[in-house]
Amino acid sequence: MTAFSTDNQKNLMLFSGRGHPELAEEVAKELNVHVTPQTARDFANGETFVRFEESVRGSDAFVLQSFPAPLNQWVMEHLIMIDALKRGSAKRITSVLPFYPYARQDKKHRGREPISARLIADLLKTAGADRIITVDLHTDQIQGFFDGPVDHMHAQVQLVEHIRNNYPLDNITVVSPDAGRVKVAEKWANNLSDAPMAFIHKTRDPLVPNQVVANRVVGEVEGRTCILIDDMIDTGGTIAGAVKVLKEAGALDVVIAATHGVLSHPAAERLAACGAKEVVVTNTLPISEDKKFAQLTVLSIAPLLARTIREVFENGSVTGLFNGNA
Amino acid sequence: MTAFSTDNQKNLMLFSGRGHPELAEEVAKELNVHVTPQTARDFANGETFVRFEESVRGSDAFVLQSFPAPLNQWVMEHLIMIDALKRGSAKRITSVLPFYPYARQDKKHRGREPISARLIADLLKTAGADRIITVDLHTDQIQGFFDGPVDHMHAQVQLVEHIRNNYPLDNITVVSPDAGRVKVAEKWANNLSDAPMAFIHKTRDPLVPNQVVANRVVGEVEGRTCILIDDMIDTGGTIAGAVKVLKEAGALDVVIAATHGVLSHPAAERLAACGAKEVVVTNTLPISEDKKFAQLTVLSIAPLLARTIREVFENGSVTGLFNGNA
Amino acid sequence: MTAFSTDNQKNLMLFSGRGHPELAEEVAKELNVHVTPQTARDFANGETFVRFEESVRGSDAFVLQSFPAPLNQWVMEHLIMIDALKRGSAKRITSVLPFYPYARQDKKHRGREPISARLIADLLKTAGADRIITVDLHTDQIQGFFDGPVDHMHAQVQLVEHIRNNYPLDNITVVSPDAGRVKVAEKWANNLSDAPMAFIHKTRDPLVPNQVVANRVVGEVEGRTCILIDDMIDTGGTIAGAVKVLKEAGALDVVIAATHGVLSHPAAERLAACGAKEVVVTNTLPISEDKKFAQLTVLSIAPLLARTIREVFENGSVTGLFNGNA
Amino acid sequence: MTAFSTDNQKNLMLFSGRGHPELAEEVAKELNVHVTPQTARDFANGETFVRFEESVRGSDAFVLQSFPAPLNQWVMEHLIMIDALKRGSAKRITSVLPFYPYARQDKKHRGREPISARLIADLLKTAGADRIITVDLHTDQIQGFFDGPVDHMHAQVQLVEHIRNNYPLDNITVVSPDAGRVKVAEKWANNLSDAPMAFIHKTRDPLVPNQVVANRVVGEVEGRTCILIDDMIDTGGTIAGAVKVLKEAGALDVVIAATHGVLSHPAAERLAACGAKEVVVTNTLPISEDKKFAQLTVLSIAPLLARTIREVFENGSVTGLFNGNA
Amino acid sequence: MTAFSTDNQKNLMLFSGRGHPELAEEVAKELNVHVTPQTARDFANGETFVRFEESVRGSDAFVLQSFPAPLNQWVMEHLIMIDALKRGSAKRITSVLPFYPYARQDKKHRGREPISARLIADLLKTAGADRIITVDLHTDQIQGFFDGPVDHMHAQVQLVEHIRNNYPLDNITVVSPDAGRVKVAEKWANNLSDAPMAFIHKTRDPLVPNQVVANRVVGEVEGRTCILIDDMIDTGGTIAGAVKVLKEAGALDVVIAATHGVLSHPAAERLAACGAKEVVVTNTLPISEDKKFAQLTVLSIAPLLARTIREVFENGSVTGLFNGNA
Amino acid sequence: MTAFSTDNQKNLMLFSGRGHPELAEEVAKELNVHVTPQTARDFANGETFVRFEESVRGSDAFVLQSFPAPLNQWVMEHLIMIDALKRGSAKRITSVLPFYPYARQDKKHRGREPISARLIADLLKTAGADRIITVDLHTDQIQGFFDGPVDHMHAQVQLVEHIRNNYPLDNITVVSPDAGRVKVAEKWANNLSDAPMAFIHKTRDPLVPNQVVANRVVGEVEGRTCILIDDMIDTGGTIAGAVKVLKEAGALDVVIAATHGVLSHPAAERLAACGAKEVVVTNTLPISEDKKFAQLTVLSIAPLLARTIREVFENGSVTGLFNGNA
Repeated sequence: MTAFSTDNQKNLMLFSGRGHPELAEEVAKELNVHVTPQTARDFANGETFVRFEESVRGSDAFVLQSFPAPLNQWVMEHLIMIDALKRGSAKRITSVLPFYPYARQDKKHRGREPISARLIADLLKTAGADRIITVDLHTDQIQGFFDGPVDHMHAQVQLVEHIRNNYPLDNITVVSPDAGRVKVAEKWANNLSDAPMAFIHKTRDPLVPNQVVANRVVGEVEGRTCILIDDMIDTGGTIAGAVKVLKEAGALDVVIAATHGVLSHPAAERLAACGAKEVVVTNTLPISEDKKFAQLTVLSIAPLLARTIREVFENGSVTGLFNGNA
Repeated sequence: MTAFSTDNQKNLMLFSGRGHPELAEEVAKELNVHVTPQTARDFANGETFVRFEESVRGSDAFVLQSFPAPLNQWVMEHLIMIDALKRGSAKRITSVLPFYPYARQDKKHRGREPISARLIADLLKTAGADRIITVDLHTDQIQGFFDGPVDHMHAQVQLVEHIRNNYPLDNITVVSPDAGRVKVAEKWANNLSDAPMAFIHKTRDPLVPNQVVANRVVGEVEGRTCILIDDMIDTGGTIAGAVKVLKEAGALDVVIAATHGVLSHPAAERLAACGAKEVVVTNTLPISEDKKFAQLTVLSIAPLLARTIREVFENGSVTGLFNGNA
Repeated sequence: MTAFSTDNQKNLMLFSGRGHPELAEEVAKELNVHVTPQTARDFANGETFVRFEESVRGSDAFVLQSFPAPLNQWVMEHLIMIDALKRGSAKRITSVLPFYPYARQDKKHRGREPISARLIADLLKTAGADRIITVDLHTDQIQGFFDGPVDHMHAQVQLVEHIRNNYPLDNITVVSPDAGRVKVAEKWANNLSDAPMAFIHKTRDPLVPNQVVANRVVGEVEGRTCILIDDMIDTGGTIAGAVKVLKEAGALDVVIAATHGVLSHPAAERLAACGAKEVVVTNTLPISEDKKFAQLTVLSIAPLLARTIREVFENGSVTGLFNGNA
Repeated sequence: MTAFSTDNQKNLMLFSGRGHPELAEEVAKELNVHVTPQTARDFANGETFVRFEESVRGSDAFVLQSFPAPLNQWVMEHLIMIDALKRGSAKRITSVLPFYPYARQDKKHRGREPISARLIADLLKTAGADRIITVDLHTDQIQGFFDGPVDHMHAQVQLVEHIRNNYPLDNITVVSPDAGRVKVAEKWANNLSDAPMAFIHKTRDPLVPNQVVANRVVGEVEGRTCILIDDMIDTGGTIAGAVKVLKEAGALDVVIAATHGVLSHPAAERLAACGAKEVVVTNTLPISEDKKFAQLTVLSIAPLLARTIREVFENGSVTGLFNGNA
Repeated sequence: MTAFSTDNQKNLMLFSGRGHPELAEEVAKELNVHVTPQTARDFANGETFVRFEESVRGSDAFVLQSFPAPLNQWVMEHLIMIDALKRGSAKRITSVLPFYPYARQDKKHRGREPISARLIADLLKTAGADRIITVDLHTDQIQGFFDGPVDHMHAQVQLVEHIRNNYPLDNITVVSPDAGRVKVAEKWANNLSDAPMAFIHKTRDPLVPNQVVANRVVGEVEGRTCILIDDMIDTGGTIAGAVKVLKEAGALDVVIAATHGVLSHPAAERLAACGAKEVVVTNTLPISEDKKFAQLTVLSIAPLLARTIREVFENGSVTGLFNGNA
Repeated sequence: MTAFSTDNQKNLMLFSGRGHPELAEEVAKELNVHVTPQTARDFANGETFVRFEESVRGSDAFVLQSFPAPLNQWVMEHLIMIDALKRGSAKRITSVLPFYPYARQDKKHRGREPISARLIADLLKTAGADRIITVDLHTDQIQGFFDGPVDHMHAQVQLVEHIRNNYPLDNITVVSPDAGRVKVAEKWANNLSDAPMAFIHKTRDPLVPNQVVANRVVGEVEGRTCILIDDMIDTGGTIAGAVKVLKEAGALDVVIAATHGVLSHPAAERLAACGAKEVVVTNTLPISEDKKFAQLTVLSIAPLLARTIREVFENGSVTGLFNGNA
C-alpha cells in the first residue's frame, strides 16, 4: 500500500471582527465554544492588521462581523480576516453577516451608479468566503448576488412574538412606511392573524437618500394600533415622519418594529420624540448607550445565529428552522 | 519600424434568434441595417444548430432574442448563438433581451430552490456575452446578477403616454395587483400627475405559482378609473381576479397596463371576459393571433430598443434616454 | 479549547430530472437508495421550477438526467437542479449524463459555428457541477471539454457480450457506418476475437446533418455476418442506408449495435424495414413505446451507472471497472 | 468638456520564439513587417528570460512559436512571452501555433492520465492569450479546448495541389495509416476526384506510444498509387510500417503526405529506406539538415500563416480562405 | 451589407476619489482635462455613495485615489467608483494609485496573517480595474500581485534631482534606515555619482509594527552628509531614530528623502525635533497643514502621473519615461 | 431515508516527478509511505507523458518536484502530473516545491519583461494545485503570487545549526553578497548571537543576469570569520567574487551557506578555487557527482519536508514548526 489513512474530523471555529464583539461572545456562549483569540489592530494611517493566535488549518471557520459606523473599516477588516483564513488553510469559510453592508445599494437607482451590494458579494468571494449567513436582507434578491450558498435568516419570528405578547391582536393594522416595503408588511399581516394593512405613499428625493417627503396614508388606520415595520432604521427620518402621518390620520398607537437598529444620529432623539409607543429592534448591530432611549426594546439575535451555525456545521436543515422559508 | 498600422473601425451587426424574429426585423429597420443571415435549425432530437452566413469577425454584435414558450428552447439557442459569435471573433457581444427569462425566480421563495434569474446571468456570461440590454426587469435587482453593464430600459414612458392620450387624468387611481408591485405603481402615480394609489391585498400560495387568492382592496377606488399595472401578464389569473375585486369595490373602469404580454393560455379568454376596458402591453414578446382579443392594444418596443442599441454602439448616453433613470 | 469537533460523514443522495425518471429509479434500486423527492414543474410560458423536498446540505449529490426530445428543456432543468443543489449547500455535485447532449457539435464543422458540446461543459461548471459521469461520448475528446474529473463509461462490454452470446464469432465482420467511426469499430473487432473490419465510404452533406449519401463498402463483407456499430442512432437514415449497401455487397446478415437509441422519427419504421436482423441499444435514453419495433433489443445501462456511482462515492477505482480503459 | 479624444489606431506586431525563427522571418516577409527585436536567453539552470526591445503597448500582437524538441522548453518560452506582452499592455494577444503541442494527448487513452492538449489551452489562456491560430490539429475537437476564438487552418489544400501536379489522378487510392485517420483520408479522397480509399487495420500498444503493430490492409490497393496521409510523422515507425504493408499488398507506388514533419530520430533513415517514392510535409516545424533525405519535399506554410494573420488583423474572413471550412 | 460602421475614437476621462482631490486637480491641469464631476457622499452609517454626472460609456477611464487616513474609507470608495464605471460601460479602467494601500503587508511576516497587498490587487480586479498605475511600491514584487499591466513609476528621479541641486555630491553617504531598504539605497548611490553606502542594523519587533529598536551603523558616516532614504515615512519613529544613531556616529548632516509622506501623528513633531537638516517627500499623499514643519519640502508628483497617463492613453512608452526601468 | 452514509477517510498519497526522485524517496521513508508508482516518459519530440499505476480517487495528493536543468522540462511534467491528478479525482492537490522555479524573475527588472514567478503560480493553479509547500523563496513576497495557502519553510534553522556546531560564534560576521540579501543576513545575525553584519556593494548589469561587478565591502570584516549567506548559488560567480573581496578586505575565513545549491557549471570549479573554507547547501536540488567538490557540505531537507507534509495532512500547525515564522 502506498498511502496512509486517517479519519476525517471537522472542527468548528468562531472568529469575530471588531464591529460587534459582544454579539460574537453571545453566539460563542450559545455554541459553547470560545471566540478564537487574535490580534487585530489599526496602523497609524488606518491600515488594518489581523493575526490569529491559534492554528486554523482544516477548520470549518465561521467569521462574524457586523457593520456599524465606520462601516468601511469593518468591511475591510472582514475581508482581511477571510484572506488570512484562506492563506492559513481553513477548510471552509462562512461569512456571518447579521447586517449585510450596502444592502440598500442593491440596484442602480439612476444611471452611472454602482451596485455596491453585488460588489460586496464579489469582494467576499474574492477574499475567500465559501458561503454567507445573513439576516433580513434589504431585498431578498441580494441572495442571488453571491455565487454560493446563502443562508438567509429572518428575525420576524422573534419580532412578531414580541408584538403578540404585548399588544391585543384584534385591533392591529400593519403599516409599511413606504411603497417598497408593502410586500414585507403583507408577511407580517399574515403572521398577525391576517391583520389589515396600510402604507404611506411618499416621495423620496432620489438625490438625497436620507431625506423623504411623506404624505398620504393608503388604507384604514383610524383608531387602530399601527405596527409600523421596516427592515432597518437608519437616521429615523422616514419612520418618524410616518408615525406623525399615522397619528394625524387618527391612529390609536404606533409601534415600530425593525430588524436592524442602525440608529444613526439623530435617530434616538427623533424616535424618542416622534410619538411611537415602542420601538423594537434586534442587536444585529451594536446599540451603544448613546443610541438608547426610553421606548427602545432590543431583542437578541444571538440564539438564532447560533442555531443556524450549528445546523450549517452539522449539515442539518436551516430551512427547517423557518418552516421552509429560508 | 516593426509594425504596420491601420484605422480601427467598428461595425454594428444585428443577430436574431427564432423567438421573435418580427421584433428583430422592426429593430433592424429602425437602425437601417439587415438582420445578419444565418442558418438556425433543430435536429430531430431537439438539439439546436446555428451558423452565420457572413463573417462576424471584429463586429460589435447585438444578439436579440425573446422568450415565448417553449422558453428553454430559445434560451439554449441564444447561448449557442453567443458561443458561435465568441468563437467567430466578434469583438463585443451584447445580449438584447426585451423579456428577461426566469425573472420571477429572482430569489429563493423557500429553501432548496434555485435562483434561476442569477443562473441565466451566469450562463450568458459563460457563453460569452459582454453586456445586456433588457426591458422592465421583474425586479431592478436582477441588474446586479450580471457581472457587467446592463442597460435597463423602461417601457413605462410609452405606456403612460398611451394612458394620458386616452383617459382623463383627473379621475385616475393607480392600482398594484399585489403587495410586491406597489413601488412600481408609485412611479406610475408620479408620472400620472400624482394620482392616488391602491393595491390588492392577496395571498399567493407559494407552492402553486400561477394561482392566487385575491381579496381586500387597500386604498380608494370607488367611482374611479383604475389603471391596474404590472410588469408582465402570464396566464392572467391574478390580474383578472384583481379586476373583479376592483369592480366589486366600485371602480368605474379598469385599464390594465403591463410591459410584457406573456399571455399564456387561457389569458386571452380570461382578460377578454374580466371586465377590463382595455389591456395595453408591448411586443417584447410575440403576440400570436390566438393571444389577441378585442380589448388588447399592443405598442411596439422596437423604437426604444433601436435607440438604445444605437447609443450603446456610438457610446452615447442611454441614461439620457430616460432622464437619468436608466 | 476554542473549537468543537465532530466526525465527518458523507451521504450519497440521488436526484433525477424528468428526462428519463425510469432509469433513475432503476439506478436507485441498484444502489438501494431512493430518488430524492422533489417538485419539478413548468410554468405556462415554459419556465422550469424545481424544489427539493429534503435537506441536501452536505450531501454527495448525484444528479441524473437524460436528454430525449425536447432536449433543451431537459438541459435547462438539469442546470437549474444543479444551481438549487449548489445554493442548498450540497458538498459535491456530480452530473450523471448517460447521454451527453450536443455531443455531435464537438467542433466547428465549418466556420462561424458554435462548439455546443464545449458550451454544455461550461454551462454545467457554471451552474455548479464538480464532476461528470457519462457513457460513450461521441468523441473521446469531449472529456477534455470539462474542467474537472469526467468518468467516461463504456457500454461496449455489455453490447459485445450480447453479440457473443447470440452470434457465431467465426464469421463476423465489424463495420463502421462511416469514416469517423472506424476507430471505434477497431475496438469492437479487437473484442470480437480480432474480427475483420469494413467501413462505408460515404459523403455527408455538411449543411443537412441528418441526410447522408452512402456508397462504397471498403473491406470484405460478402457472406459474412456484419456487426454494424455506432455510438448513437438518431433518425436511422445513415444506418439503414448502410444496411442496404451491405446487403447489396453480399452480407449474410446485418446486426446493428449502438449505445444510444435516440430513435427520432422515423427511426423505428426505417430500422424495422431496413433488413437488419437485430438492432441492439441500451436505455441511456428512454425508449418509448412508439420507438419500439420487432427487431429491437434494449439492454439496461443502470447496473453500470450504479456501480460507477458507488465507486465514485466510496473513492474506489472506476478505471478498474473497465480494465484500465476509463 | 471633461475628456479629450483621439483616433484609435491598431498596430500589428509580430513576435517569434526561438522554436522556429526562420518560419517567423518568412511570415514577416510576407506581411512586410519585421519580427519585433527581443532578448531571449536561458539561464544556466534552464530558466528562460525574455525582454522586448520595443514598446508593445496597445499592439495587436501575434506571437509565433513552433515546437520541435526540446518541446517543453519552447512551451515555457511561449507562455513567458505572452506574460510579458500582457504585462507590457499589448491590446490583444494571438498565439500562433503552426504545430499545436501535446495534440496527441487529447483524451485519456486509459484512466489516470492527463489531457495535456486541454492543459496547454488553459495555460495559454492563463498566460494571457486571447486567441489561437493553428494548423491541422491532431483532432478537430482540440478547437473546443480553448475558451476563445481558434482559427484552424488546413495545409491540405497545398499538399493536395502538390499531389495533383505530380501524380496521375486516375490510379490513386488514399490510404489512412490507421483507423483513427480514416475520416481525414476521406476528405483527401473527396479532394482527389473522389479517389477510392483504404486503411491499415493495426493494433497500437496503449502503453508504448511510438510502437505499433501494423497488419491487414482494408480496401483495394493492388496496382495503385497509394497516397498515405497523416497529420504528423514523428519517428516514422507507423508510417514506414504502413508502406511495407501496402507494398506487400501490391501497391504500385506509395507517396506519404503529412502536415507536420516532426521527424524525430530515426525518422529520416526509416523513411528513406521504407520504399516510399516521395514524402511531402510542410515547415510547420523546422526541418534541420539531419532530418532531410532524398525523397523529402518540404512546402512552406508561411504564405498561409501570413494571409490568416492579415485577415485576423483586418477583421476579414478566415473562413473565406478555406471555402467555409475553417 | 448587413452592418453599419463608424470610426472608433477613444476618450480619456479622469476621475478622482475624495482621498486627495488636490492632486487630481493638478494632474487634470497637466493633462488639460477636467476631473469628471460626480456626487460622492457618505450615508449616516458610513456607507459610501458615488454617481457620475456625465456619461462614461466607452471612455478610457483613469481613476485616481490616494490613501491617507481613514484609509479603508478610501479603498472602499475607490472600489465602488470602479464598479460604477464598469457598470456604466467604461471601455478600459485604470486604477491610478500614487500610494498603494497595504503595501507593507506584502507577505506573511509570521503565520496566520493575511497578505493584504495581494488582497488589494484582487479586490481591484474584481471591482473591474483593467490596469494599475502606481508610484514606488514598498517592494517591487507587488507588481506581480495584479493580474494585468502595472505601470510602476519612480519618484527617485525627482528626489535625486533635488538633492543634487541642494547638496555637494562629494561628501555624501546614502543610508538605508534598515536592512530591507539597502537595495533601494544602492540605486540612490548609483544615481548620486556612486556615493558610499551605509545602513542601520536594527531589530524590529514583529508584533508591534510601528516601534523599532535601532542600533549599530554599518558603513562609514563620520563627517559626511547622510542621505537617509526610505519609501515612506509613517509615524517617523524608525527614521528619527536613525537620524539620532547617525548623528551619534558622527554624521555631519542628515537629509531624509522618501516618496510617500504618510506622516501620521506624531511624525511632524518627531521629524522637526530629530536633528535632520531637511525632509523631502512628494505629494503622493495629501500633506495637511498639521503635518507640516519647518524642515519639510514637498515635491509634486503630478507632472509624472500626468505624463504616464498620457503615454498609457496614447499607447506610447512608459518605460521610455524612466530609461527602461519601468 | 433517501441517502446512505459512510465515514469519510482521508488518504495521503505521495507523487514524485523525475526532477529529483532521490529526495522524494527520502521524504517517503520519513513519512513511512511509498512514492506512488507511475509511468513517466518523454516522447521522441520531447512531449512528456505521465500515468499513475494506482487509483488516486479521493486522495490527499502531495506532488513533489524539484527543478534542476533542464528546468522547463520538469515544470511541464509537474503541471501534467497535477492535471492527471485533477482529472483522476484527487480530493486535494498540494504542489511540493523544495526549489520554486523562476523565483528570481519575481518583478519586472526593466520594462517589457515577464514576471515569471507569478506566471508559475498561475500555471500551478490552472493545472489544479490547491496549495503549495516550498522552501526559502527568493523573496517572501512570492507567497502572495499564489491564490491559496502557501506553506513557506525555512532551511535556515538547519544551516545555522551547522555553523553553530562547527565555528566559534564570538568572531563571526554575517555577510550579504549584495544589497538585496541584507535583510536575510540580518535574520542570520539574529540567530547567531547577534553577530555583526556586512554586505558587498556591487553593481549588477541588468541585461546580463549571471555576471556581476563586485566591489566595496560595507561593514567590518577584517580578522573575522565571515558567514557569506545567500538563498541560492547558481553559477557561483557573484559569491566567488564576494569571497575574493572579503579576503582582500582581511577576512580570516569565509564560509558560504545557502539553501539552494543550483551549482550550474562552472560553480564547482569556481567555489573549489575561491578560497572559501566550506560551502554548505541543502539538497532541495539534486547535487550530481559533477557538482561536488572538497569543501561542499550537503544537508538533507527531507526531514523538514516530511514533517510539514504530515502537519498539513493532519491539520496540525506548520507555523509551530518554525516558532511562528512560517
